[in-house]
This record gives sequence, C-alpha cells and structure tokens, in this order.
Amino acid sequence: MSAIPEQFLKKTAQLSADITRPFPNSKKIYLNGSTPDIRVPMREVRQMDTATQNKDAPEANPPIYIYDTSGPYTDPEAEIDLLKGLAPLREDWIKDRNDTELLKGPSSKFGRDRQQDKDTAHLRFEHIRNPRKARQGKNVSQMFYARQGIITPEMEYIAIRENLQLEQMRSDARYAKLLKQHPGESFGANLPDIITPEFVRDEVARGRAIIPANINHPELEPMIIGRNFRVKVNTNIGNSAVTSGIEEEVEKMVWSARWGGDTLMDLSTGKHIHETREWILRNAPMPIGTVPIYQALEKVDGSPEELTWDLYRDTLIEQAEQGVDYFTIHAGVLLRYVPLTAERLTGIVSRGGSIMAKWCLAHHQESFLYTHFEDICEIMKAYDVSFSLGDGLRPGSIADANDAAQFAELETLGELTKTAWQHDVQTMIEGPGHVPLHMVKENMEKELEDCFEAPFYTLGPLTTDIAPGYDHITSAIGAANIGWYGTAMLCYVTPKEHLGLPDKNDVREGIITYKLAAHAADLAKGFPGAQVQDNALSKSRFDFRWQDQFNLSLDPEKAREFHDQTLPKDGHKVAHFCSMCGPKFCSMKITQDVRDYAAKIGVDEIEAIKKGMKEKSEEFEEAGSKLYQES
Amino acid sequence: MSAIPEQFLKKTAQLSADITRPFPNSKKIYLNGSTPDIRVPMREVRQMDTATQNKDAPEANPPIYIYDTSGPYTDPEAEIDLLKGLAPLREDWIKDRNDTELLKGPSSKFGRDRQQDKDTAHLRFEHIRNPRKARQGKNVSQMFYARQGIITPEMEYIAIRENLQLEQMRSDARYAKLLKQHPGESFGANLPDIITPEFVRDEVARGRAIIPANINHPELEPMIIGRNFRVKVNTNIGNSAVTSGIEEEVEKMVWSARWGGDTLMDLSTGKHIHETREWILRNAPMPIGTVPIYQALEKVDGSPEELTWDLYRDTLIEQAEQGVDYFTIHAGVLLRYVPLTAERLTGIVSRGGSIMAKWCLAHHQESFLYTHFEDICEIMKAYDVSFSLGDGLRPGSIADANDAAQFAELETLGELTKTAWQHDVQTMIEGPGHVPLHMVKENMEKELEDCFEAPFYTLGPLTTDIAPGYDHITSAIGAANIGWYGTAMLCYVTPKEHLGLPDKNDVREGIITYKLAAHAADLAKGFPGAQVQDNALSKSRFDFRWQDQFNLSLDPEKAREFHDQTLPKDGHKVAHFCSMCGPKFCSMKITQDVRDYAAKIGVDEIEAIKKGMKEKSEEFEEAGSKLYQES
Repeated sequence: MSAIPEQFLKKTAQLSADITRPFPNSKKIYLNGSTPDIRVPMREVRQMDTATQNKDAPEANPPIYIYDTSGPYTDPEAEIDLLKGLAPLREDWIKDRNDTELLKGPSSKFGRDRQQDKDTAHLRFEHIRNPRKARQGKNVSQMFYARQGIITPEMEYIAIRENLQLEQMRSDARYAKLLKQHPGESFGANLPDIITPEFVRDEVARGRAIIPANINHPELEPMIIGRNFRVKVNTNIGNSAVTSGIEEEVEKMVWSARWGGDTLMDLSTGKHIHETREWILRNAPMPIGTVPIYQALEKVDGSPEELTWDLYRDTLIEQAEQGVDYFTIHAGVLLRYVPLTAERLTGIVSRGGSIMAKWCLAHHQESFLYTHFEDICEIMKAYDVSFSLGDGLRPGSIADANDAAQFAELETLGELTKTAWQHDVQTMIEGPGHVPLHMVKENMEKELEDCFEAPFYTLGPLTTDIAPGYDHITSAIGAANIGWYGTAMLCYVTPKEHLGLPDKNDVREGIITYKLAAHAADLAKGFPGAQVQDNALSKSRFDFRWQDQFNLSLDPEKAREFHDQTLPKDGHKVAHFCSMCGPKFCSMKITQDVRDYAAKIGVDEIEAIKKGMKEKSEEFEEAGSKLYQES
Repeated sequence: MSAIPEQFLKKTAQLSADITRPFPNSKKIYLNGSTPDIRVPMREVRQMDTATQNKDAPEANPPIYIYDTSGPYTDPEAEIDLLKGLAPLREDWIKDRNDTELLKGPSSKFGRDRQQDKDTAHLRFEHIRNPRKARQGKNVSQMFYARQGIITPEMEYIAIRENLQLEQMRSDARYAKLLKQHPGESFGANLPDIITPEFVRDEVARGRAIIPANINHPELEPMIIGRNFRVKVNTNIGNSAVTSGIEEEVEKMVWSARWGGDTLMDLSTGKHIHETREWILRNAPMPIGTVPIYQALEKVDGSPEELTWDLYRDTLIEQAEQGVDYFTIHAGVLLRYVPLTAERLTGIVSRGGSIMAKWCLAHHQESFLYTHFEDICEIMKAYDVSFSLGDGLRPGSIADANDAAQFAELETLGELTKTAWQHDVQTMIEGPGHVPLHMVKENMEKELEDCFEAPFYTLGPLTTDIAPGYDHITSAIGAANIGWYGTAMLCYVTPKEHLGLPDKNDVREGIITYKLAAHAADLAKGFPGAQVQDNALSKSRFDFRWQDQFNLSLDPEKAREFHDQTLPKDGHKVAHFCSMCGPKFCSMKITQDVRDYAAKIGVDEIEAIKKGMKEKSEEFEEAGSKLYQES
C-alpha cells in the first residue's frame, strides 16, 4: 500500500484556491449529444447591455461561447481530488465497443517491475487501473472505426465542441451582427459550413485529422487535430533531475489546461518518469504525448548506442498501457541523411534526432525505429496511440531552414505515414523549427504533398534567430502563418526558449501567445464562427463595456490587471457615455452624428459612393495597374 | 531668463547611470563618409573564440555590426547634457546648401506668444535656436535635392548606415559562413546588392523613400523610410493631463532610442505640449513626428467644430520651426466617405479621423486639411517636413477591415500624394489597424497602386481582437507580414494597447517586439546582409558561447537575466564541450561524429542523396502533384 506524499494533500487544497476558480462572469455549461453521456463542456460568457440614447431601452448583448480546455477544474460543481484522478468519462464508450480486454496487469517488463518497486512506492498513484488492450486481432483506433463507417461518441463530442453553438446562434437574431465574418483563404482545405459528426468521421478516415485518445486514458475530453478544424496548441512540461517534482508537474498540467492548452507533452527526463506520468494522465482532461526514446535513454544511462529494439518496445508498451495518447517517434532519421547535416550552421538540434543519428553512426545501420516500424504500428493500434512522426533533422537556425536534410526526412515521414495508414494507425507529422517568413509556406506545401495531408504539427517556426527572451513572439509569427496555410497544431514556445526552464508565468505567456496565433490562423482560413468572439469583444470595446472586453479576452485576468494599473476604480469599468473623453469629444456621440447623417443622405447615395470606388478600381486594373504614373 | 526645473538636473545625472550604459561587449564605432563630418554610428559586438578539438587552435569569430539608433547616449565619449541638447551635427550641411535663412524669431503667433509667456518660463528649454526657413522661392526638401540629382550628406550617411559594413565583410574570409543568406521574396521591390548614395537619391527622387529631416532638427542622425531599405520601427510617447511631465517624456525618448526605435511620435495632449516638444527635439537623435491637429484641438478647448484653417496653419508653422520632422495629417477624410462608416461595428476609431469627421459634419463641407492641401505643401517644403498622410478611417476591428470607407480614403491619399510630389514634398502613407492575416496583403497592394509606391507606414495590423494585454503580439504578426510585403515602417504597439498607458517596461517590450517583426520582414524580403546577425547568433548558440548569444540579441539584458534564473553562475556562461549534457550525450560531439562520417563517405555520395531527393520531387510534380494517393 503506497503512502500518499504529503505535498499532494497540500497541493489538492491549493489547486482549488489558486488555479481552479472560474473565469469572471463565465459559466461552465455542458451540451448534450445524442446520448446523455455525451456532455460537451463550454465556457459561456455573459455580457452586459449596451447603453443607448434611450436610457430605458438598452440593447441586450447575447452570451458568447468559448472553446473550453480547462477540464473539470473550472467547474464549481465538479469534485476534484488529484489523489483519485478525474472521472473516466470515456470508459463506457470503450467498453461498449466490445473489442478490448482488461489485462491482469502491465504487460511491459518495466511496468511490472515498477509496480513492485519498493523505492518508488511512496510516489505511486494509488488508484492505478489495470491496463486495457485490444482483443487479439482487433484494431481499436479511431481511424479504424472511421474507415468502417462508424461514428464514435468521440467523433460526435468533437463535432459539438468545434461548433460552439454555431447552429443555435445562426437562428438567433441577437447574433446577426456578431456572426459577420470575412471569407477566409484556405489553401485547398475543405472547411464545411458546420462541423457534423459525419464530417469528423470522414476526415479521420482520410487521415486528414486525428483524435488522440488512448483506450487507457478514459479521463480525456475528446479533441481533434486536423486542418479543417480549429487550430490547436500543444504545451510542453516535464521534470528533469535538477528541477521540479511530481506535484509541480501535475500543477503545470492543470495550469496549461486553464489557459487553453489543447494537448500536453510530458518531456520529463529526470527520475520517476513513470510515476510522474501516471499522476499526470489520471488527472489530465487533454491528450498526453511523450517522446519514448527519452525514457529509453534513461534506462541505458544516457548512452544512445546502447539502445535496443527490445528495450524501446518495452517502453512503448509501458507507456501505452499507462494511457499516453501520442508518441513522438523519430523514425525518419535515416543513416544516409545524417551526412547531409554536416555542413549546417547548427547541425542536428533535435534531441531525439541526435540520439538516433548517434545510434545509426555507431551501428552503421538504419535505426530500429525505421526497421521495426510495422511492429510499432501493431502496438499503436492495440491501444489507439497516435503517431507524431518526429522531425529529428529539423533546422536549428534560419540558415539551415528547408535544406536537403530536412526535406529528405520529410519524404521518409510520408512513406511511414502510408505504412501507418495501412494499419489504420492515426498519424501526424512534426515540423520545424526555424524558418524565415517567406519559406514557411514551402514547408506546408511539401508536407501536404509528401505526407498525403496527414495533420502537420509544428514548433513555431521562429522567423528570426536574434531575439532570445522573445522567442514566443518570433515563433508566433511563423506559427500564425503556417496555421493559416494548414498546420493543424502548433507547439508552443515560451519566453525562456533557448535560455532556461519556463516557470508558471512563462507557461501562461507561451500558451496565450499561441492561442492568439492559432486564432489568427482560424480567422484567416475562415473557420466558421471563429470571428464571433472578435466581433463581440470589439463591440464591447466600442461600447465602453470594459468588463465584457476583459471577460471575452484570452486572458481576462491580465487584461483587467493592465487596466487597473491606469484606472483602478470600479467606476472606471462601467459603461457611460463620455466618461472617457469629456462632454465635448466623445466618439460615441460622433458615431451617432455619423449615423444620423447617413440616415439623412440615404442608402442610395452611400451605395453610389461605394460603387464609384469600385468602378475606379476596375478602371485602374483595366489600365494595367501601372504602379508609377507620371503626375 | 528661465529657471531650469530642478527635476531635470536630477534626471540628467540619472540618465547616465540608468539608460546610457553601453550594451555588454559592444563598442560604439563611427564610420567616416567622403568628408570627415559624415560620421555614421554603429554598434560593434565583439565575439569570443569557438573552442575546437585542438585546444591550442580555437576558431576566431569576427565582430558583428548592428544598426544603432541609440544616439550619443550610449557613447561613453559623448558629453550628454539634456539642458543643452545634442550637438547639431547637420547644421553645416544645411547652412552649406545656402538656400535657407535664419529668422529673428518664431513666425507663428503661438510660437511668439509662448516665447514671452511668463507662466511657462520655468519650463522653457534654455538654448532655443532661432528657427531656420527656406529662402523665398527655395525648396529645401530632400526630395527636391534628389530630383535635382544632388546627393546630400544625409543620403550618403544613410547608405553607409543601411549597409552595416557589408562591403568590408564580403572581402573578409571570417564572414564567409555568416554571410550565407536565403534569397528573399520581395514582391516587386527593387533591393540592390549594396546600398549606394546614388541608390538612396534615386529612391527619394521617385518618392519610394523619404528622409524625414527638418532643417530645424539638426541634431538628427539621418535615416530613411522606404521598402528597399531596412524596415523601420516607430514608437509613440506623449503626456496627457493626468500623467507624465516633461522629464519623463524626455527619458522615454532616450529609452526608445536605446531599444531600437527608429522614429518617435510625440502624441502629447496635455498641458505644455509646446515646451515638452522643444525638450524632446533638442535631445532627439531620431526623427520626431506629431499630429498637429491634437495641439490645434487643445487651442480650441477640445471642440472640433471650432477648428479653423488659420489656427491649424499657425500650429503647423509653430511645430515646423521647432523642428518636427513629419506631420500626420488626416486630409483624406472627405465628407462623402463619412457615411460609409455608419454601419461599421466600430465606427471611426482614429482620434484625428473622428475630429475631422465631426468638423466635416458640423460645417457640411470638406475639411480645411483637404481644401488647403497645397498651402500645407508650401509650409512643408520651406522646412522639409514630411507628410505622413493619416488614415482617419482605418478599421478599429477585424470586422471592419478593408471596407469601402478605408479604401475610399486610401484613394484620396493617393491623389494627395501626387499633389505633394508636385511640390517635391516627401510623403508616406499611414495604414491600419485591425486586419485578419489573409487580408493583410490586399492593404499593401492597394497602397502601392493607389499611392504610387509612396512608403507605407502601418500600425500593426492586429490579426485578432481577442487578446487585449497581448496586442503587441497580435499586431507583430500582422506587422511582420506587411513588412515583408513592402511596408517601410511599423508603428509599434505595446502590451497596454486598448487598456492603459504604457510604462517604461511596456515601451521596451513593444519596441523589441517590433524590432523582431521588422527583422523577420527584412529576412523574408532578402535585405542584403540582414541574416548576418541571425547566423552569428545561431553559431554562438551552437558553440555554447552564451555571452555572445546574449550580446548579439535584440535585448541582451533580458536574455542574460532569463538565463540567470536557471543557471546564475558565471561558470555556466563559459563555452566548454559537454558542460551541458554530460560526457555521454553531447551534441558537439555528435556533430563531430557526423562530420567525420560525412568526410568518410565523401562529397559524391552526399550529392547523390541530395540529387535523389530533387529528382523525386520533380517526378512528383510531373505526376500532377496529386495530394492524396491511394496507398
């Protein structure tokens, strides 16, 4: 019987006070699907009325719905107990499919050893479930179901989640103005007018989207990664020998969920990786990814050349049975590509990539990740772990962007994608890194071609190398662009990138920066309904509804805090005509003057002005758009 | 005789300690032009050696040159006295042109009144020079000289400054690897291999670039704004009734110069605008811009409808004789465009725009800015003040982007540009605002067409409205893109945008964010030599030369501070093999293994791999680039 660590009991209490309070004026709501056990969470933000010239007839502003990644932690009704973990909401869905079996215990050697290990007993999560596995000959991946024509509860859940009440809004007059949206430019993507469960199924079947959802992670709230859906953000956490312990990592995971992280990678390299992962998974509402080679390397004391297939295989099974939802696997680092990096400015910068390059050179043969790729597929489909095919040869500087080594590996990732799909294993592709703006698009285009539209998952890319301390921003520029071009998920970068380990505030800064980049991409590609939140916030800004402006923003707490620094009083947050600019100069008043004037001259004249502009511009184009005309 | 305010004496002492220290391991150097009085400042960053396997033969790393906006403030040799102002380095150049005269005193009524005013005597800058003006019938604009075929000292200064020693580096073997640069994509721009004084002249003559340099601002270090040069960053400061005083504004100006602001707008709206401006100008090494209508509005107690041409004219002359280098003038807000904003989500959000709209509606006629535009040109050319034609109808939200009102005004700005050019008055065009990513390019294209390639100067644009508190980032995304497409100068946005007044740290955060966006644009358009700094920094990173990595970055102080938070000791900043990852896992060692292996297999085999990749990709394209091939 394991003794629960003291710090956890403390932390459980802390969580509720610190990072679980609901956002201001927001309410967690749940939408039901076709069955009562499909309950999709959303954040409903209620708005104040707009003051009008007629004091007795203010204009009502409808509630706005925001995609909610925060899990049960922001639900005051939910009982949170980190020691027990979250409720296994997908458990019945998985059972009902009747294609899995509950094992008697871990089937990995490491898993079994660790279960009995006395030294780590005090760190062990108390309520470990026995692992579940596909029955002999069965494939339990969402891709397999999708290709059979089956719409899983996960798919239906995702359709509701991506739509954010769009259908209801369209039939509600209060939203008319807020629904106005510019048509996007989607580079051959196939955005529907509304996301249906059937559309989700079809995208997963084609391999154009994945639903990372290990059958051993039933606590997960299903989400989708694909370019015809909202752009997602991945966050990284992870302990190392010198830094944080289990309780800090769990707290970081909850923190990441709070600020909008869609998925989370546990990149721990220190001690107790196995135990830390269990605590994280049991409390995580989002998909969890890992880089299994990191743990394998720990098992051989940090010597890449001593890695073996058997050891790696055991690690995959160990992690799959804990519930990891996607594995980064650098199977595209081939021996013949390694010399292509010799003349680079910054060689091989991916940790996984250099481990595998070292192995290949030491053994002078292709890596076991490549030679055993089909064996890996067998493991993936038995638990529904998704591939995140790693870009071990990604560029580490602007100078090395889009080079032969990088694109050679990408082609191999494409071949591996085909193989994975033959096994109906869900697959996404990792991308760079460091790329100047004008070369970003080529990455997306090559990925779509070489990897047959499998979802792209990129780190940034950073668009310049000269701003350490601000690399969340240099990379958000690349991220917004590549998201617009079709990248499905963006791996966040914090301000500490290249310099040190991020603290809690760096994590928040990194996530919000990436959420705004992802949202800028959604607007640009024209994702249906994406602009509702912008429009609502802009209207609240124009109305001087300060509280609504804060509440509708990605980081309501910081927005309010910044406003308080100049105007701290509550009275400053209330909407009144002219409280900002004095009675003589009031933009609300000017707007009213403009509207009165427009009403006076009438619609015909306004249309005539617009038309005049249009004609003039056509005339110009006909004249050959000469840029410089002598005046 | 004016009494010098006590706080200034204090501030002068503070400046030297706080914001004037040179950057670490950097030295201010001056390059001479064809005459000894052309001395162009640069920041030279010296680098450490790279450790090699042969301890006795380290690899020397050459110095890197960084564009230096900080003025004499970071020069330990320069004597700084805010009470006296900077040395008037352009004075002789202006005199030698022999086309100006020194006036006996201000020719504006307001300027004369203020000179005698007893209430503000204690705030008055002590060493006010008499204003200078073009002699009767003369035009003293850089555009006029350029069109006469004259290369001014300002133009030569700029050519040296933009090149940053590029020619010398090209003939020095130590820079070979650092000069490697991706070819950019410049959207019809005309980037030369090296910037010559003649190229500068030609660009100014065509109107494709401007050199804001009022003859009454001889302290200014010349710089250029045009799409065939480095992308520039403008910063805003300004007091208001409730906040900062003169000494704080002067300090903000020096602070802005330190972090890289290329130009600065004084947007003061409070008391003592005139006196504040004088202090700023006399101490400013960068061009200073204003929005004269703001001061004019103060003069009529904030009632837009009471503004008159005479009052405005007097304000222009007052400011021109102080030395303001460019004026934002919202002359494109025409009466017939105003109703086009009636149905917008956020109406008119430009302060200047709504002042003029209000005036037009109140008087039911076109504004005096439009009807007196040629009179304004006469003033501009007598002092060489540049136009910054304001976008009074810019969109205030994503919803209103690229609408009829915005583009109607842009066309009028194009007409006004032609008029200004008939007077040889330098002109740039202001741009939005709030624009989703996919609609950014249209702004640039329309500006080039409608305004005949006059330099574009944009605020962001913000690419989403949902991130107050992070609008420096939402807008840096738009700024990097529009800079790449051809925008010549980016107006910075701070984290406090929409929420409150920026403090010193917000200003720094805003500037660095915009410097990195501008640099990302320079890389993307392929500005010659822009990548040297990235390459040098990346090499230092790969070599574990931490100090060099900090020193070569946009914000060396923050980079060091972040690193210190994880690894504070001096020993952690020294380059040694394997100090980071332990003896078994060392990326430097792996790189060496890779290089040895590459040497062993030889160049032919590497070329064969590269070639194989290329052939395969061509084969694919010939096959019609089918995205989804059945596997």
